[in-house]
Amino acid sequence: MAAAPIPVHTMSSFEDADTEETLTCLQMTLYHPDHLQTGRFQAIRFCHREKLPSHKVVNFGRHSSTCHYIFQDKQVSRIQFSLQLFRDFNSSVLSFEIKNMSQKTSLIVDNHELGYLNKVKLPPKCILRFGDYQCLVEKQDGESLTFFETQFALSPTCLLQENLWPLRMPVPENGPQSTLYSTLPTEMDENEL
Amino acid sequence: MAAAPIPVHTMSSFEDADTEETLTCLQMTLYHPDHLQTGRFQAIRFCHREKLPSHKVVNFGRHSSTCHYIFQDKQVSRIQFSLQLFRDFNSSVLSFEIKNMSQKTSLIVDNHELGYLNKVKLPPKCILRFGDYQCLVEKQDGESLTFFETQFALSPTCLLQENLWPLRMPVPENGPQSTLYSTLPTEMDENEL
Repeated sequence: MAAAPIPVHTMSSFEDADTEETLTCLQMTLYHPDHLQTGRFQAIRFCHREKLPSHKVVNFGRHSSTCHYIFQDKQVSRIQFSLQLFRDFNSSVLSFEIKNMSQKTSLIVDNHELGYLNKVKLPPKCILRFGDYQCLVEKQDGESLTFFETQFALSPTCLLQENLWPLRMPVPENGPQSTLYSTLPTEMDENEL
Repeated sequence: MAAAPIPVHTMSSFEDADTEETLTCLQMTLYHPDHLQTGRFQAIRFCHREKLPSHKVVNFGRHSSTCHYIFQDKQVSRIQFSLQLFRDFNSSVLSFEIKNMSQKTSLIVDNHELGYLNKVKLPPKCILRFGDYQCLVEKQDGESLTFFETQFALSPTCLLQENLWPLRMPVPENGPQSTLYSTLPTEMDENEL
């Protein structure tokens, strides 16, 4: 017995629809030692993919009218940092750039310390640090140039543990250490801060 | 006869005021062949310095809710391009970056052609082109890291004439030519457009 035919109008709208494109996704896993005590992350919607236009500059910080993602914490700057997309010449891949927007707090991207208005291109996987905050950032490439996605997770444990972040751990001559925090040199700490 | 003493309260507020800092200024001289016929520039305030916070991303385009500077012209994209400040590592000088936000029109910075979401650091003096628009951009460095200024002028004549823009003119072997437009190669025109 043959399968029931697909109704003509359904087939037509299916055939006429734009070809679906995969979206570049930025997965951000947040950690703060006091995440249980306060509502600092209550404005962040976890485990949800948010679709955003690729021309959008996404600010992270305390100020609700200028930031898209808000940390409810007085130790966070009104705008802490911004993320935005760009495209390298001769490339169809979207890349992310991060810029430190805080005049008070430095932003550390792996082992690079960014002062106010310093910026870097994000590697496909990295750890951001500002104040007591840590954020593991992982990028999945997609086809669309028009939109991208973000997704947040919350980590109950420090992200700088050796087992969670082994790839960029330097191997000290006197044996492994438990966290990157104590072993990574911070670039430009004498000049910038 | 001695000069009249300065009132104490005036002197005090003068002494207590923050030290004035010079501002980085971006002077933009606009040209369009039809600038007299239509109101395309009527939303631009010419010969006026506007002070803006250095964290601001300044969009140029047709869409009034997302653009700070508006061109009233249907041939201009909703967001044509964006300008923003950043600071190189180990530098106290503010730099400008320009990003092409138009999916339809390329943006030419001197002889570099930018596709959608391509970006470059602006040289201290350059000419932007998109569609029939030309814009001479000149940067004056200032001390402040917190604010910058913009100033617009309108040019009644084409900016690519040899006498207005001689510095970047290539010297062709068969003698000088009248405009950059015809002599500058556009980078990546085969790959990007």
